Amino acid sequence: MTVFALGHDAFIIDTGIMFPANDMLGVDYIIPDFQYLRDRTDLKIHGVIFTHGHEDHTGAITHVIEAFPGTPIWATPLTAGLVEVKLRNAHLLGDTKINKFNAGDMIDLGPFMVESYHVCHSIPDCVGFGINTPYGLIVYSGDYKFDNTPIDGKKPDYAKLAEFSQRGVLMLMADSTNADQPGWTPSESIVTEAFDDAFKVARGRIIVATFASHISRIQQVANMARQYGRKLAIAGYSMTENVKMTRQMGLLDIPDEMLVDIGRIDDWPPEKIVIMATGSQGEPAAVLGRLATGRHRHLDVEVGDTIIVSAHTIPGNEEMVNRTINRLFQRGANVIYDPIAPVHVSGHARQEEMRLLINLVRPHYFLPIHGELRHLKEHAKLAIQSGISADNVFVVENGVVIEADEKGVRLGNRVPGGYVFVDGHGVGDVGPVVIRDREILARDGFLVVVADIDQQSGELLYTPEIITRGFIYLREADELLQQVKEVFTHVVEENHDESLNKLRSLAEESIRHFLYNETKRRPMTFCVINEH
Amino acid sequence: MTVFALGHDAFIIDTGIMFPANDMLGVDYIIPDFQYLRDRTDLKIHGVIFTHGHEDHTGAITHVIEAFPGTPIWATPLTAGLVEVKLRNAHLLGDTKINKFNAGDMIDLGPFMVESYHVCHSIPDCVGFGINTPYGLIVYSGDYKFDNTPIDGKKPDYAKLAEFSQRGVLMLMADSTNADQPGWTPSESIVTEAFDDAFKVARGRIIVATFASHISRIQQVANMARQYGRKLAIAGYSMTENVKMTRQMGLLDIPDEMLVDIGRIDDWPPEKIVIMATGSQGEPAAVLGRLATGRHRHLDVEVGDTIIVSAHTIPGNEEMVNRTINRLFQRGANVIYDPIAPVHVSGHARQEEMRLLINLVRPHYFLPIHGELRHLKEHAKLAIQSGISADNVFVVENGVVIEADEKGVRLGNRVPGGYVFVDGHGVGDVGPVVIRDREILARDGFLVVVADIDQQSGELLYTPEIITRGFIYLREADELLQQVKEVFTHVVEENHDESLNKLRSLAEESIRHFLYNETKRRPMTFCVINEH
Repeated sequence: MTVFALGHDAFIIDTGIMFPANDMLGVDYIIPDFQYLRDRTDLKIHGVIFTHGHEDHTGAITHVIEAFPGTPIWATPLTAGLVEVKLRNAHLLGDTKINKFNAGDMIDLGPFMVESYHVCHSIPDCVGFGINTPYGLIVYSGDYKFDNTPIDGKKPDYAKLAEFSQRGVLMLMADSTNADQPGWTPSESIVTEAFDDAFKVARGRIIVATFASHISRIQQVANMARQYGRKLAIAGYSMTENVKMTRQMGLLDIPDEMLVDIGRIDDWPPEKIVIMATGSQGEPAAVLGRLATGRHRHLDVEVGDTIIVSAHTIPGNEEMVNRTINRLFQRGANVIYDPIAPVHVSGHARQEEMRLLINLVRPHYFLPIHGELRHLKEHAKLAIQSGISADNVFVVENGVVIEADEKGVRLGNRVPGGYVFVDGHGVGDVGPVVIRDREILARDGFLVVVADIDQQSGELLYTPEIITRGFIYLREADELLQQVKEVFTHVVEENHDESLNKLRSLAEESIRHFLYNETKRRPMTFCVINEH
Repeated sequence: MTVFALGHDAFIIDTGIMFPANDMLGVDYIIPDFQYLRDRTDLKIHGVIFTHGHEDHTGAITHVIEAFPGTPIWATPLTAGLVEVKLRNAHLLGDTKINKFNAGDMIDLGPFMVESYHVCHSIPDCVGFGINTPYGLIVYSGDYKFDNTPIDGKKPDYAKLAEFSQRGVLMLMADSTNADQPGWTPSESIVTEAFDDAFKVARGRIIVATFASHISRIQQVANMARQYGRKLAIAGYSMTENVKMTRQMGLLDIPDEMLVDIGRIDDWPPEKIVIMATGSQGEPAAVLGRLATGRHRHLDVEVGDTIIVSAHTIPGNEEMVNRTINRLFQRGANVIYDPIAPVHVSGHARQEEMRLLINLVRPHYFLPIHGELRHLKEHAKLAIQSGISADNVFVVENGVVIEADEKGVRLGNRVPGGYVFVDGHGVGDVGPVVIRDREILARDGFLVVVADIDQQSGELLYTPEIITRGFIYLREADELLQQVKEVFTHVVEENHDESLNKLRSLAEESIRHFLYNETKRRPMTFCVINEH
């Protein structure tokens, strides 16, 4: 999410979400912190404009429209379709207006005149922007690669970039995702060759797993299925929805007679079937994950199936993906994945493409965006190597303001710009404290002792009760839990004169100590003691 | 851990541990299930023999000696040193005898005559074995690569492999770790060039992070430091211990005057210092992790430091490693890591080396070992492509017995051969049930309501008490918890006639329902109700 502001006028490019790291326990997803925008009540937000339809660029739109109802949206047709689904599901369609544009169109956003231009990535209908400001032209690359043989035939708009360059570019803001990868990202077309090799030898069904939004990959597989006389079935709700929508919009070319309902694939022999499926990240609930553990309603992996995992593994998902692949092998499938064959290529530019973009655009200032800090640093190095003055290259993290005026561009102040965790209905109510508690619980569980004591004598009124989970296997822990009761009883008996609170903390301390000695584990331990 | 048995005689090769996956919550490490060996009380175990000193080949030795006290150990000098430390720490040195051998030596293990031979890997003193049995010779590769320019000058023992081949090899058991990687693993020597590039331009301190046991890497860095006139300091307990031991054994060549205590590095200018450190996997408690978050006792990252992360990232650790690198950049260091420069190479053979080993040894049967199922499958493919009959190639998971007799080799039965989780003192007491509970706790925490009611009237004797952790941020949850009390009170009031158990489950159900509606979270919920 990037905000451009001039005086009291502003607009937003993209509203993405991040997926939680493995140690952000229980977090569903992460949205940007836009408290700064809430505080700037003087700002008029003229619109949200999207580069493309991936989750990490659109996923937070419902949160943004909820916070700033009435803000209009601009998007290319496919992106508009994907965003519309989100807003409809959240009952927010009435709070915005979705305006469609095509690559090449100009969009009027208050004092900003924004020129869109076509870029290649791994989803159709992607654009970058030229943003006209009183202080110069800012080029915003969006996610891009320079694919000279794209599947849909739509080449990168080199002419527009050259034209920007001729007019003079104040600053380039460019995608850094693959900045540590030398060379040039291969074209989506090389995947076609790898697919052709796999289709040529496959004797049974072919199952291709990729992202539900990877429309160009779906088109590729459909073309291959047609070539080899196979029918195509789609498995997975989100992919089925996306295929329906993009076919209606004319963005996906699959003839009706080629499509087969996933529940009816057994009407055809295995060698006549291709199935497109979700679950390329090893998600247990998606199609591939269900197939790997035999929990899919319509499908079972059969000996002779060829399964192609055609997607980049998002960092952090490696274990799940590998485990899924192993399980599919276990069930008798032949699994093809990178590096066995190049069945996937990245949608992001590598170093040579980055150099090309910088040299095409010839900006005075350079701001690497998208990617971790290590990628921004590498991208900055490339820019400096390409001749941009090191003083004019800014490596900044979220929340740092970049200011431009007639004197040039410089670093501004830092505003709140961190992450906001979303967990269920809760937005931002789960923070470091809760996550830390979840870490402890994840490691060693918890144990609660409940007891009542006599107000006069201070004696236990009944045997204490223990509730514990995640600490020890209960069926084999009778003796240990009996000892915990003894430790507790001992503390109560020895401390008749203490206050309830004191008694409680003494008991908790003794039990923690006892449990650590016995088990070398530290479950969260609580005692509840009441008097009667 | 592999067991070879003939009649009532047996021996064991390696006793490794596995590191837990990210979703094996709270598990410290995983040891092999050797229940089968415990049950076979008729078996005499003549010894444990080690291929090399890495944790995934030695880490479970204390558990094995504990289970089978008196079993002798055979190991090369470095491996013996590493194993001895483990046994001493566990007070088990008296329960075994550690016999040292050198590559080339024969070891007499009951009816088995085992011939050792030198292999290259990423730790010195590695061996493979030729195991003479009445039914033929079995070659066991251990972890290996064919490094023709190893750092210590000790080449792979091609001659021994050729000799095995001439004598005729019944079965080859070979390392499959990199079976999906085409080509030939580069020599450790190419790392020298990458280091040279980094040392040439570094103007400040150089910090190199790798595994504590990566003795050949430590030697490389020491050589480089000498070449560039820098002093060497070691940071991290385990690495310091390993350096001390291997220098004493003459396996590591670092002159006394080159070594500097980590607490005294400030006595030299930054450009005269190299620091070797642990933490290459992003472990928060190791040196690099502490440097990244500013929590090291002696060291702080300074602007101008060059940090080289010289280790393969173990799958599952990617997020932690990347986060560590980003934080080091944030602190002003220049971080060099793969793929920025080839500052690390794998210690395992790739496909061409695997083909070479198979063709050198020319076995009748082939058993791919070490690696996930997907790697074993690929390795099996390579063997079949190399001319071994597909019927003679066995892809098996842990616990499957392979039988050999005068008629040849075949698949046997399956015996218990899974994983045993170690958590603190507990070996095997944490299983799927406890892990599942930890998963729920990690996601949504828990909530316990405690209340006493009047035996006669069934009314609450005081306001119920709530204990909750990992569910919601308590400081902002007053209202929600108040509502939970109301839900609970309502259930108690409406169900005076029910038994305590019934009341309890009704209350738990109502609270779960309420919390899910309000928060879309499902904390583990318990109610404790007592009568007075």
